[in-house]
Parts: sequence; C-alpha cells; structure tokens
Amino acid sequence: MYRVAVIKGDGIGPEVVDSAIRVVNSVTDRIRFYEFEGGFEVFKRIGSPISEDDLKEIRKMDAILFGATTTPFNVPGYRSLIVTLRKELDLYANLRIIPDLSNGKEIVIVRENTEGLYARDGIGFSDRAIDFRIITLEGARRIAKFAINLAKERNSFITFVHKANVLKGDRFFREIVLEIAEREGVEVREAIIDSFMIKLVKNPWDHGVILTENMFGDIISDLATIHAGSIGIVPSGNYGDEIALFEPIHGSAPDIAGKGIANPIGAILSAAMMLDYLGLNGKVVWEATRRYVRYGNLTPDMGGTATTSEVTKGIISEIYSF
Amino acid sequence: MYRVAVIKGDGIGPEVVDSAIRVVNSVTDRIRFYEFEGGFEVFKRIGSPISEDDLKEIRKMDAILFGATTTPFNVPGYRSLIVTLRKELDLYANLRIIPDLSNGKEIVIVRENTEGLYARDGIGFSDRAIDFRIITLEGARRIAKFAINLAKERNSFITFVHKANVLKGDRFFREIVLEIAEREGVEVREAIIDSFMIKLVKNPWDHGVILTENMFGDIISDLATIHAGSIGIVPSGNYGDEIALFEPIHGSAPDIAGKGIANPIGAILSAAMMLDYLGLNGKVVWEATRRYVRYGNLTPDMGGTATTSEVTKGIISEIYSF
Ligand SMILES: CC(C)[C@H](C(=O)O)[C@@H](O)C(=O)O
Ligand SMILES: CC(C)[C@H](C(=O)O)[C@@H](O)C(=O)O
Repeated sequence: MYRVAVIKGDGIGPEVVDSAIRVVNSVTDRIRFYEFEGGFEVFKRIGSPISEDDLKEIRKMDAILFGATTTPFNVPGYRSLIVTLRKELDLYANLRIIPDLSNGKEIVIVRENTEGLYARDGIGFSDRAIDFRIITLEGARRIAKFAINLAKERNSFITFVHKANVLKGDRFFREIVLEIAEREGVEVREAIIDSFMIKLVKNPWDHGVILTENMFGDIISDLATIHAGSIGIVPSGNYGDEIALFEPIHGSAPDIAGKGIANPIGAILSAAMMLDYLGLNGKVVWEATRRYVRYGNLTPDMGGTATTSEVTKGIISEIYSF
Repeated sequence: MYRVAVIKGDGIGPEVVDSAIRVVNSVTDRIRFYEFEGGFEVFKRIGSPISEDDLKEIRKMDAILFGATTTPFNVPGYRSLIVTLRKELDLYANLRIIPDLSNGKEIVIVRENTEGLYARDGIGFSDRAIDFRIITLEGARRIAKFAINLAKERNSFITFVHKANVLKGDRFFREIVLEIAEREGVEVREAIIDSFMIKLVKNPWDHGVILTENMFGDIISDLATIHAGSIGIVPSGNYGDEIALFEPIHGSAPDIAGKGIANPIGAILSAAMMLDYLGLNGKVVWEATRRYVRYGNLTPDMGGTATTSEVTKGIISEIYSF
C-alpha cells in the first residue's frame, strides 16, 4: 500500500483533486489518501501556511497530491504554501510537461525549484527592498543532473535558458551544466531568456529538455501553456530525493470555483505522473486522457460545455475500456 | 543645432544606424552626429566597454543613437555596453513601443532600466553565486511617475506586472505605484508576471501602459515583439533626466551582418522617438514608415526580399512625398 498526502487547497483546488483521486482509484487500489490542510486560512490561525505536525506526517508519505491555493501578496510575513512545501521538503526539481494531447508532442521543462529568487525571503528597508538570486554549486549540480538524465532517457538534448550576459549566477550555473553534460555525452543548446520567449512561441516543440533557474522556469512554463490549448491541462511533478509532490500548474481560479466547470485534466495528468513515480501505471491515464480529448466534450476553457465531473467520468470510462 | 552621439556597435548595428541617420537627415538639417566607439573590442583594449573621455563627451550631447553590440557572456569582468550606458547615464526609463504598423495599435512597455537584477554586479564564491534584485524608493518613484504621466498623456491606464506573491521588492514597488497612481487619478491594473505571459500572447493590445521592473521588462518586451511581425521593427528610448538614448530592441544578429538585409525599421523608428524627444518632427517618420509598410517590399525577417537600403529609400521617398 502506498500512502499519499492530499492537500486540496482552495478555489478550484478541491474540485480538481477530487477528480484526480477518482481517476487514480479507477486504476489502482494500492493507494491510500490522507488529507491535510494548508494555505492562507491555516496561516491566519497558526501563523504558518501548514502546521509542523502535518509537515512531519507528510514527510513520511510516499507522495503528495496538491491542488491549488490562493496567495495574497499584501500580507506581511505570508509565504505561499506551495513555495513553503517545495522548500521544506527540498523538492528541487520541478518537471512540467506541456502536452499537445492531440498529437502526442510535448514541451518538457525542468525548473530548479528551491533556489534563485525563491531561495530566501527578501529584505525590506525604508528606502529599498532587496531580493537575492542565489545559485549554489550543490543546487546547480543536482538539477543539472536531473535534467541531463531526463534528456538521456528521452534520447534528447538540453536547452539551457539563462541570462548569463547579465547575471553572475547564470554564468556559474552555465559552467556546471556544460561540464556535467559533456561528461554525460548530452548536447546542450543555449538560449537567452528574453529571445527565448519568441522561440517558445514560434517553435515550441524544438527544445528538447528545457533547463532553467526557478523564476525563469516559472515564466517559461506559463508561456508554454499557450501550446496546450489551456493551462488547465498542464501537469507537474516537484521531485526531491525523499518525496515528490504533484500538482496541476494552474492556480486556484477563484472566479470559477464552485461552478463545477474547472478543467480536471491538469490534476489528472499530475496524478498520472505520480503513478509513474510510484512505479504504478500512469501510462494508462495519459493514454485514456489523450483518447478522451480526441472526441469528448471538454470544459469551457477548452471551448467545450462539459463539467468537471463529465470530463472525469469520460476519462475513467476510457480507462475501463482498455 | 542639436548634437547627437552615435554608437553603431557591431553586427548589424552599423547598417541599421546608417539607415536611421539617412532618414533623420531627410527630415531635418538641425542635427549633427558625432560617432563614438564602444563594446567588446574597446573592452579588449582598455578594460572597459567605453572610454571615460568618450563618456564625458557623450554626456554633453543632446541625445544618443545606438545600434547593437554583441555581449559575450563568458568573459570575466565584462559588462555589456548598453547596460553600462544605461547605468552610467542614469537612463532609468526604458520605453518600448511595439507597433502593429498596419493598424496603428501599439503595445507600450515602460521598463525600469537601472535597478532590479541590473543594479550591480553579482558576487561569485566557490560554492555559490548571488545576484541582487534591488528596488529603491527613489528608483521606484521616478519610474512610476514616468509611466503614470505617459498613461495620462495617452488617456490610458497602467498595467503593473510583478511577482509580489514571492518578491519583497515587488511588494515594495507595488505600494509606491498604487500610491502615486491614486494621487494622480490613474487606474492601475495588476498582473503576475507568469500568467501575464499568456495574456500578452492572447490579448496584446489590452494593457494600457505596461509598467514593470528591469528583468521582467526585458522578458516582456521581447515576447511582445511577436505581435509586431518582426523584432526588427521595434524601437525604444532610454530616458534619463539629462539625456536619452534611442536604440532598436533587436540585437546585433551576427548571422546576417554584412549581408545588407537587416531590417532598418527598428532603428528608424528609434530615430523617430529621438526626434520627438528633441522637439523635432518624429511623427512624419512614423507616418512614412506606416505607409511604406502597407505596400513596400520588406526585409526577409518580414517575409519580403528587400535590402536594408531599399527599405530605407522607400521610407525616405514617403517622407519627401508629404
Ligand atoms: C503561486 C506561486 C508562488 C508559484 C510560483 O511562483 O512558483 C506558481 O506560480 C507556480 O508556478 O507554481
Ligand atoms: C544585451 C542585454 C544586456 C540587454 C538587456 O538585458 O537589457 C538586451 O536584452 C535589451 O533588452 O536591451
């Protein structure tokens, strides 16, 4: 039996996570889910977005399934739950897969997930505020290895996206990436973050495994979703050496919360990535989703009229039909 | 007589600046151009991308016309010429106008140009490298005022793009922007940098005056060029309180340098912004360019077969036809 922590969050988080759990349960009975609370509501009660006790329990789990939370940005001292979890659990590799479900193509992004501008809180003074973009040797090495291994598995290459013409940290990161890739016999192409924007719009499928620093990865991965039809279908895995967390990359979308029309596919494919991570059959979920998308009614974000529940049921019946 | 410093740079820089100068000379005889050298070649000789003496001369000029330079990013101690000039001359407001020349629409971006991750060089240690993202009260105030004044002139509003849910500096910046805008009666809409990527692709013309920090502005403005047909037509002005520098936002494009096929329109429209700044007739250059683009043969980056020189001549004859 695998033990999976579930943090549904708020907004559409609970709706899409429920869908993902239904799908997982239709594939395997080897997972038990344990629900945990977290986010701004918890912060208001205890001054931290998740309790120490819960974190301790979660560390013992095999994986985490995460929905979405709303992060208010004008509350002093509040750090978003997902950033806290990535940091606390040292989930250093954020793998985002932007699929074109109709043709099987994918944009693959490996975002460093614990350092850069997210490494620590900035400092505010009366006349200025400073954030720190920190790239460590250890941090750069482990993420470079993660991406390079993935490129090997996929018979692909690395596109390292950086701003080394301005940033010391990216010059440092770049040396490490080039060195490890050479040793491992993996090709590295380079792109500067600004002009990469244009390439990602115009030739999205040509970049092998995209490797980049935390904030650049945040920006690139949202942009890449324009090729997926909707950000609502894009899954991700946040991997550490001990545990991994899976979440759709979309946010909590408070405007459509409770209406039953959130796109569950991002959460469902995140669950598929989780099944793969646990050594269970994630492939069947990917394949069922691809099939369903080909003919099925989709949610409004994809131009359809389906509800969250209809899409979920549709994918589950595809799974049963295998 | 106005005195304008010219720094052509390398790659296609000299070709497009020559075009811009020809266009300016067809509009007015009130400008005298003075050429200065700068860039990596100068750095190799004197250890700095531009000499102190030249900088001193340039400070006395009325404006600067800049082409493009290649910035190698693996040379220790080298800081790109354009970043050096922005900093040394305190050109704090980078205004980038991404035009759709066929219908007159524009994306207007105000990028803070001296602070953020460009404020100072990062520091390298054996086990890490740190860059600093610095936002000062003074820096935030002056750029907010610049953008808010522009929004007023244009009868428009501000879209402030930030990552205040993670960055202290952007929370600081945000407070200042909101305060000044309220005082000035200008509406502020907000967008988070990651999801703004998608909005900028899908609804490019809906954002009024986009205001953002230095690196985000770098990224956003390249992305915005996808709506211009080619990055080759996008002009910019870098404004300080004493002087301003005008440059196309494209780079030095060494791959097409010397072939005579570089798009001169970005440099020509930058010269138009310069004419406006000097109180001369930039409008006629904008209008002539718009007319030429409607029927004229364009350079290969825009799907045409014209040379740099043909496009330049075409625009000049439009000017003479007024
Ligand atoms: C909510 C926010 C803090 C987060 C991030 O910046 O990483 C989100 O945009 C993401 O990409 O997961
Ligand atoms: C060449 C580079 C240093 C520069 C920048 O990052 O500002 C360029 O991309 C720009 O946008 O003018």
